[in-house]
Amino acid sequence: MSVNVGPLAACCDIGGTKALIGFVDPQGRILARDRYLLGSAREPREMVAELADRLHGLASRADIAWERIVGMGYSTAGMMDVESGVIFASPNQGSWRDAPFKSLLGQALGVPSWIEMDANAAALGEAWQGVGVGADYFVYVVVGTGIGAGILVRGEVYRGWRGTAGEIGHTTIDPNGPLCNCGNYGCLEALASGPAIALRARGAILQGRRTAISELAAGGEITAETVVRAAREGDLVAQEILAQAAEYLGIALANIMTLLSPQVIALGGGVMHGAGDLLLEPIRRAVARRCGSWVDLESRRILLSALGEEAGLLGAARLVWKTR
Amino acid sequence: MSVNVGPLAACCDIGGTKALIGFVDPQGRILARDRYLLGSAREPREMVAELADRLHGLASRADIAWERIVGMGYSTAGMMDVESGVIFASPNQGSWRDAPFKSLLGQALGVPSWIEMDANAAALGEAWQGVGVGADYFVYVVVGTGIGAGILVRGEVYRGWRGTAGEIGHTTIDPNGPLCNCGNYGCLEALASGPAIALRARGAILQGRRTAISELAAGGEITAETVVRAAREGDLVAQEILAQAAEYLGIALANIMTLLSPQVIALGGGVMHGAGDLLLEPIRRAVARRCGSWVDLESRRILLSALGEEAGLLGAARLVWKTR
Repeated sequence: MSVNVGPLAACCDIGGTKALIGFVDPQGRILARDRYLLGSAREPREMVAELADRLHGLASRADIAWERIVGMGYSTAGMMDVESGVIFASPNQGSWRDAPFKSLLGQALGVPSWIEMDANAAALGEAWQGVGVGADYFVYVVVGTGIGAGILVRGEVYRGWRGTAGEIGHTTIDPNGPLCNCGNYGCLEALASGPAIALRARGAILQGRRTAISELAAGGEITAETVVRAAREGDLVAQEILAQAAEYLGIALANIMTLLSPQVIALGGGVMHGAGDLLLEPIRRAVARRCGSWVDLESRRILLSALGEEAGLLGAARLVWKTR
Repeated sequence: MSVNVGPLAACCDIGGTKALIGFVDPQGRILARDRYLLGSAREPREMVAELADRLHGLASRADIAWERIVGMGYSTAGMMDVESGVIFASPNQGSWRDAPFKSLLGQALGVPSWIEMDANAAALGEAWQGVGVGADYFVYVVVGTGIGAGILVRGEVYRGWRGTAGEIGHTTIDPNGPLCNCGNYGCLEALASGPAIALRARGAILQGRRTAISELAAGGEITAETVVRAAREGDLVAQEILAQAAEYLGIALANIMTLLSPQVIALGGGVMHGAGDLLLEPIRRAVARRCGSWVDLESRRILLSALGEEAGLLGAARLVWKTR
């Protein structure tokens, strides 16, 4: 089939500050893609109107006839009911509540639409076109500003009752650990997310430890990315901070292995994409130490996401194709 | 239907030292039951022969015609493949490996047979006749000599890849906790199982703490049951030990809520049956402290098993009825 004919899915992955949009064919090829910064217009109807504009503009520039678009897939953070298509609330996106995104999208774009939580969408993308292909039991863990997981069983999202499953970032890893945004102490997110890594680095500097992290930040904000750069340049404090984060991530992944027994765990999100093997290898070693012998780790895989930031976009497209 | 006609399932729940056997009708009524101590005959063929003898004896005493038995359900600890019916190994039951229990049972009893892991069987029983009725997402946690879980999704066991899911007892709850039998440190089982509770009591006595636990054991072995009795009589050390176990169990259950989002969690096993509300109430409080606000705990339930030691027996019977 030519790339100039045939049905296409419109899709987007809405992050905290930017949106990734694109058109994807039934074979998972991204025929066009774009990104834009999310403006201050954060009311649902305005967000959807801007998205429709951006998609029409992209289609026009890529010479894609709008008639080819057969559905829309929308991935975002937040609590939602994917059946009714209502998003109850979304972090960093205004103070609105209970917005009917599925029908707003359908009205604005004129095609059937589906919504999904970002970690679930990334899991669907990775299971469709990435390292989760062929795995009946697959977990995708996103490590970035937050930490979450998408759990797939034979290609279907495991949602749990009322759809709140997968919040690995808020499982307790160290009962005496630091306070988390959620009110609990010692959550994985408070120990190993990007902000947690950055906080640890600032703490080390305040303690007067000898490190090049401040220098690398060059007066800007210290982020997990600064810590990763310092570690790559041999900074011992940065390496120690990442080793600690890897240990906590390893415990969480071992708990997933022990409780859910996936064949493949994929690791994505900004922190993992930035750190790569620097985190992956110590995470694997920690999982091996923390799993009982009956978990046949030699036949299971813990891998970096193959799709990177496109996992969510492809997963959003998958929403369209899997229900047609 | 009279209890004297109609099909029956033969079933058993094989524990570490004793077996519970019975006959159960399609409505979940136990028409006859018995128990026996597992002798030294621990080879699979001998175990099955003894079981067949005991079942025939029980049928005869209860005036149940053997022709009514349409299937056999077998619940036990151990790693197994329920499809092929092979048990790879079972704790406390000899050194055999890879025994084809499903076909051994079929040959000895002349009826189709099914096997299941004990925590899964108890979950199936509780979902059929106990506190899990009607819950699409249901987890049964057994707290006894070991700690394990059966996870049900719409009445089907969640097994994971190669069937090793549900081992909540070997998730890490405290990274710096005590060594577990499995080789890891800080597993729930090393912190809150019956032997862990007893070990903590012996430690308190060795430290010279003021407690009536030794006295209550009256020269016999100190067990979790001794600690529970002492706590009920107001012993502060015993109460502190149980509070600590409840905190760890609460963290594990909060992790289950956060990751798997069940509607109902049932607690069974020897320690829970013995301690009842003494553990249940502090566990519930710990779960509430440890869960994020998006987990709507007020609409979820954490309950003691309603079936007690019959959960596994009924679950074994359920194996017969759910596949007919």
